[in-house]
Amino acid sequence: MDYEVIILGAGAGGYLAALHLAKKKKKVLIIEKEKFGGECLNYGCIPSKALIELSENIFYLKNMPGMTLDYKLNMKDWQAWKDSMIKKITGGAEGACKASGATVLYGEGKIVNKNTVNVDGKNYTADYLILDTGSVPVKIKGIDDVYYNREILAIDHIPETLVVIGGGYIGIEMGTAFRKLGSDVYIVEMKDRILPEVDEYLSRAVDKRLRDLGIKILTSSRVLGVKKNKNYTVKIENSGDIIAETVLMAVGRMPNTQGYGLENLNLEMDGRFIKTDQHKRTSVDNVYAIGDVSGMPMLAHKAFYDAYVASENILGNDTVVDYKSMPMVVYTDPEIAFTGKTTDKYKQIPAMANPRTLTMNQQDGFFRVYYNDDGTISGAGIAAPRSSEIIAEIGLAVESGLTLDDMFMTVHPHPTVSEGIKDACEND
Amino acid sequence: MDYEVIILGAGAGGYLAALHLAKKKKKVLIIEKEKFGGECLNYGCIPSKALIELSENIFYLKNMPGMTLDYKLNMKDWQAWKDSMIKKITGGAEGACKASGATVLYGEGKIVNKNTVNVDGKNYTADYLILDTGSVPVKIKGIDDVYYNREILAIDHIPETLVVIGGGYIGIEMGTAFRKLGSDVYIVEMKDRILPEVDEYLSRAVDKRLRDLGIKILTSSRVLGVKKNKNYTVKIENSGDIIAETVLMAVGRMPNTQGYGLENLNLEMDGRFIKTDQHKRTSVDNVYAIGDVSGMPMLAHKAFYDAYVASENILGNDTVVDYKSMPMVVYTDPEIAFTGKTTDKYKQIPAMANPRTLTMNQQDGFFRVYYNDDGTISGAGIAAPRSSEIIAEIGLAVESGLTLDDMFMTVHPHPTVSEGIKDACEND
Repeated sequence: MDYEVIILGAGAGGYLAALHLAKKKKKVLIIEKEKFGGECLNYGCIPSKALIELSENIFYLKNMPGMTLDYKLNMKDWQAWKDSMIKKITGGAEGACKASGATVLYGEGKIVNKNTVNVDGKNYTADYLILDTGSVPVKIKGIDDVYYNREILAIDHIPETLVVIGGGYIGIEMGTAFRKLGSDVYIVEMKDRILPEVDEYLSRAVDKRLRDLGIKILTSSRVLGVKKNKNYTVKIENSGDIIAETVLMAVGRMPNTQGYGLENLNLEMDGRFIKTDQHKRTSVDNVYAIGDVSGMPMLAHKAFYDAYVASENILGNDTVVDYKSMPMVVYTDPEIAFTGKTTDKYKQIPAMANPRTLTMNQQDGFFRVYYNDDGTISGAGIAAPRSSEIIAEIGLAVESGLTLDDMFMTVHPHPTVSEGIKDACEND
Repeated sequence: MDYEVIILGAGAGGYLAALHLAKKKKKVLIIEKEKFGGECLNYGCIPSKALIELSENIFYLKNMPGMTLDYKLNMKDWQAWKDSMIKKITGGAEGACKASGATVLYGEGKIVNKNTVNVDGKNYTADYLILDTGSVPVKIKGIDDVYYNREILAIDHIPETLVVIGGGYIGIEMGTAFRKLGSDVYIVEMKDRILPEVDEYLSRAVDKRLRDLGIKILTSSRVLGVKKNKNYTVKIENSGDIIAETVLMAVGRMPNTQGYGLENLNLEMDGRFIKTDQHKRTSVDNVYAIGDVSGMPMLAHKAFYDAYVASENILGNDTVVDYKSMPMVVYTDPEIAFTGKTTDKYKQIPAMANPRTLTMNQQDGFFRVYYNDDGTISGAGIAAPRSSEIIAEIGLAVESGLTLDDMFMTVHPHPTVSEGIKDACEND
């Protein structure tokens, strides 16, 4: 064999697996057909957070009493900064992999069999194969020439009007950001509420706030077609047409299982996903699958976790995934984050009761902590600025079986948003 | 007795004690001579965070490639907003106390004996007394007519030149904020480094960054005098004079033990502080002391904690304070936060290795986690944006005896600053 492990795809999961295995002295080949870092680093989580950060800063200053704000935003220059920032991250990741001894190969990998991947006519062999081929956006037949996440995050100006088709987390994040950057935004969702992937008590808080911000939200609305002339015309069932400068299609993502010889492995599938067990093993010996292609949720931190567990198993350290405290964040307004399980018992305080939130001129949202009969924390849902940063503490509590009292009696610094979690846990 | 508990001072600790005791049906009188919420809410933590938030947003946009920023800041209008924001918080706190049944009395309380406090000539009696009289800024003889925290946070314009006397956390926070708002800033510290109250590895990161921002830092420098004519002239030993529009005096705070009849209790003292045991009991039966007046550190969250513990003891629930995971934050650049104990073993990654930090166009700092021989986490020091929000997770780990592995195997959402803690805990 040429290598001990071949990894197909250098996305979030793939590169972490390569790094971890190479650090542990495994001989690793990682194959990437596009960019190191994959969708998340190049076209997803990272550029979207940079754009959201920009939009939030502008929005804050625009709405701050005493401030008269006048600005020009040259998006081309901003994009150049964004690209250089991403290169720091992807370059750092690739450099770390190489420095640890992994071999990085660019090209289209085609699986020949469970030990062989062909790139540009040459076969590479290994004992183990890790599939981290990610996901691709769902496209709707007959709707062409619209923007997807990649195009919207590379845009060179702020569109006057933006129609977002799909009210899931990608659509909501982009809709919120462009609204704060000045666009007239429509969000069109087929289901009866936005953010159908999160619990309703969370999506309701976002829905209310986004409407307050002037976003037009159309739920239970089916897009019949999109025509492009000079502008786009978006045809909606039982509703008028919307004329828009830009249309973002964000109706979901699906596992990427086409075009790289997956059929040659004859793996068991789980719907459209590659089926894996808790060790992240597929149905074929010594073949692992991680990240988006291996099941929900399609989130980078789930891919990191999968990658670590698969690598540990390859290293001979029996390890299993347990998604019980898998967090999710939607960087909208209010920012929402949740983890763990809901139960029929929870404690909640409003975001307004958190002084730090008010110092940021924000007040929408709440801190909700779910618990079990024995007082242990089972999960939480937070709608508040920086909820992304404080949800991990709940994850740690869930993983470690800690109680409401453990949380409440841990001194949280003042003034912080994190105090909201502690205060919600008070026993009264 | 008129009441079960009299609380002297409605600062952070006092109002929390009043609220907690009143909720538990104790008959409570809380006496405040100035404003409900005390120094923290009215003149300290809260307005300073609002000002820092403003300065950080402006600084971010000023330095963001692609942005051309032009703004006018009318500080009078901003101050009006700030005051209304504070009123929401203090009004909420006072309202909650009253709604729970506590009596709020404004006036100068004078202690007559351990069961009696006189306000405006009238005696009020109670079984228990809680002292939460806070702290006052240290003043230097012969230096008059300068700004202290109250004045600087009420300022109606951005000073052209600001000299900060004292490089502790208050001076550093204000110096950083005004520098980002455009002032020419000098920080003069007597000791050989800024932030002498934090470990040197943390203060060094701040020192470097503040100098990069153009703040003139003078350490080992003694101020000989300050003269005010049209401008201030600040005389520094072995150095030239500095001419400045504004001088902020921030050389520390001391416990407030004067002017309210403390001498009539004949309490044991601990230096300038009122001596308390772990129950927050003073040397006199049924008299408790909490917050700044009862010992270091002088921080609002320590006062909250003291208040809760004292209240629980009054309620008959034996409870003691344990400051082993007491966090501290300095909202400077990079923002620093720490908790727990240092040991001779730590793991550290640079802030630059955290993608979320880069999306915010920041990259200075690090994540450092200290641990014990058995792998349990003993503390952490973080220099990174939003370190204030993520340090509580380390506190929870310290309180609960969790290990580096427990932290590393808890999935942290991506991309967040909180991932930096997890990544620092990786076992390699």
